[in-house]
Amino acid sequence: MTFGFEVIRTDAGARRGLLTTPHGRVQTPAFMPVGTQGTVKALTHRQLEEAGADIILANTYHLSMRPGDALIARRGGLHRFGGWRRPLLTDSGGYQVFSLADRRRVREDGVEFRSHLDGSLHVLTPESAVDIQARLGSDISMVLDECLPYPATHGQARASIDLTARWARRARDRFLALRDGFAGGPPVPLTTPDQAQFGIVQGGVFADLRRASAEATRAVGFEGYAIGGLSVGEPAEVMYEVVEAIAPALPADRPRYLMGVGTPADLVEAVARGIDLFDCVMPTRNARNGQLFTRTGRLNIKNAAYVEDDRPPDEGCGCYTCRTHSRAYLRHLFVAGEITAAVLNSLHNIQFYLDTMRGIRDAIEFGRFESFRQSVRQIWSRSLSS
Amino acid sequence: MTFGFEVIRTDAGARRGLLTTPHGRVQTPAFMPVGTQGTVKALTHRQLEEAGADIILANTYHLSMRPGDALIARRGGLHRFGGWRRPLLTDSGGYQVFSLADRRRVREDGVEFRSHLDGSLHVLTPESAVDIQARLGSDISMVLDECLPYPATHGQARASIDLTARWARRARDRFLALRDGFAGGPPVPLTTPDQAQFGIVQGGVFADLRRASAEATRAVGFEGYAIGGLSVGEPAEVMYEVVEAIAPALPADRPRYLMGVGTPADLVEAVARGIDLFDCVMPTRNARNGQLFTRTGRLNIKNAAYVEDDRPPDEGCGCYTCRTHSRAYLRHLFVAGEITAAVLNSLHNIQFYLDTMRGIRDAIEFGRFESFRQSVRQIWSRSLSS
Repeated sequence: MTFGFEVIRTDAGARRGLLTTPHGRVQTPAFMPVGTQGTVKALTHRQLEEAGADIILANTYHLSMRPGDALIARRGGLHRFGGWRRPLLTDSGGYQVFSLADRRRVREDGVEFRSHLDGSLHVLTPESAVDIQARLGSDISMVLDECLPYPATHGQARASIDLTARWARRARDRFLALRDGFAGGPPVPLTTPDQAQFGIVQGGVFADLRRASAEATRAVGFEGYAIGGLSVGEPAEVMYEVVEAIAPALPADRPRYLMGVGTPADLVEAVARGIDLFDCVMPTRNARNGQLFTRTGRLNIKNAAYVEDDRPPDEGCGCYTCRTHSRAYLRHLFVAGEITAAVLNSLHNIQFYLDTMRGIRDAIEFGRFESFRQSVRQIWSRSLSS
Repeated sequence: MTFGFEVIRTDAGARRGLLTTPHGRVQTPAFMPVGTQGTVKALTHRQLEEAGADIILANTYHLSMRPGDALIARRGGLHRFGGWRRPLLTDSGGYQVFSLADRRRVREDGVEFRSHLDGSLHVLTPESAVDIQARLGSDISMVLDECLPYPATHGQARASIDLTARWARRARDRFLALRDGFAGGPPVPLTTPDQAQFGIVQGGVFADLRRASAEATRAVGFEGYAIGGLSVGEPAEVMYEVVEAIAPALPADRPRYLMGVGTPADLVEAVARGIDLFDCVMPTRNARNGQLFTRTGRLNIKNAAYVEDDRPPDEGCGCYTCRTHSRAYLRHLFVAGEITAAVLNSLHNIQFYLDTMRGIRDAIEFGRFESFRQSVRQIWSRSLSS
């Protein structure tokens, strides 16, 4: 299958779509569980498939450092190496590199950084980020962008979107050269020949810069467009405003991906503003910390209130954890430090997120997205402010 | 179902049997994965069921300390509390209490000890061990016995089997009184009314004491008999000799359980000498340390030899891990410290142990146990001495 995207139905600003990738189809709006090092933490691929994950995300930085993208390419790419058969998206590695703070330095050609594993010196460039992702063979690769910390001044953000735009052009040139077989230098194996490439809009919380970045990214031209640099500490309302201003400036016939977002409320609010794809570590990270997402809000399983509670974590949930176990038992496992607690909690939270996306898709199809959004907003605004 | 045991077929000393318990049947010889705190580490109940686990073991000491046997009884017993529907065996708690070393003191009436969790003072007696396990509601409960360290002198072991025999009598009296409703004091809920009780033969490596202990235990009379105090540091050959001397001294129509054993070679050697039941942390503990059991011997997944090895860990294995993943990927997950590594390795090792037991049962049924034993011995004597 080659890459494609189709909007099947809209409901106000929300889009119900179908993404086609070399490794299969993705019903959108979709949430991508994060498999940083080639596995979603604590879960098996089978558990993800059964929960209904159409696509997962893997981190280029981590995989390129260990076990290495060259090794993965020799094994036939990340799908064959890791045994995940469905679509995969890889980030550019930039986000992790920029978060290394004092161990990285931005240059015009790319970012110089020291590995968190052994301190070795590396340079990540727009071109090398393309090459690494070609070796990994994801279905969707992302361009290298500069990730500014929040808050940033208008001047910093201005310089940053200009750099990001120059990098986007170089990344696209390299991507097309590899695809068309005209790239110079040592050959780079494209382990997934029909890989797509997404551009990334930056610009902080400044509407004018976001618009300029969207225009510049669109001018380069990609199979899809992402909004980066949000959910980095700004208030949720500010994030929603940026998304609302920018999404319509992106091509309507291409998928739109809001990176690193977010809470259940964020998902519906962003879908309402025309977003199709999401990823976030929240469901799995919170699961390992004992925080469960439920249809009635957040539930901290370590809370003493659950010590003799025979109810499932989420009475409306059909996941294995909720079908099989009580809050009392899950609390016991968590308090006792059992690995199984991380497994069962992660299983539930991923199911909750994927069920939320299913609910969103159904609501759009039946033209009742607004009422679905209100119900989610009601639960999660209350829960998050508690 | 009430408790029962039937030997279906024998092949030289090996017995193929069927154990019937309140929560279902167990094909013997059987291996019980260890679920110390109410879960087999890193695995879900479903994964255990799919691997073919007929029965698992839970630790009375750990569960009585946290979340507490009274809490579990209020939740309806360990089956209902933890969601495991098949048979369960609980130990007496003695083994863990004795391993507390300087935090416990043996008295005639029982063992005084301090909790490893909060240092609180407790006394475990033959009677309280019965009561705790009645609250937990396992299908098979074990009597409290004294667990001697290895090596022990003949004099120490002599005193110990006498104490264990006095405790066995008291444990049986208490068990029968509870069962028949004639126990004094506050009521103890029997959350599994048809629970069975096994006695334990001790006596270290001394054949005369083992025989005396077997006789004393048999004189009390139990639904099954265990051999305790082995696999505590003595050479494997010594353990096999003790089993060979003692198993025939136990009633032929009752199940025989060799506690805390062992390697694949230990399992077949003990089955050859008439043992029906086993438990051991080895498959799960070794899995978490990256050591896999395979049909060709041990495999340390962290070994650099596997860094680009596309083969499954065990080419003869049909488990999820072997069907889905390569050694190269499993090595990566282990080196990266992923929880999923513990899950996938545990899944495989438990499947390997349960497959070994299936192989043993089939071999006995078809009268070819001796050749099966030789093949296992050949692989594991070589592997373990390497």
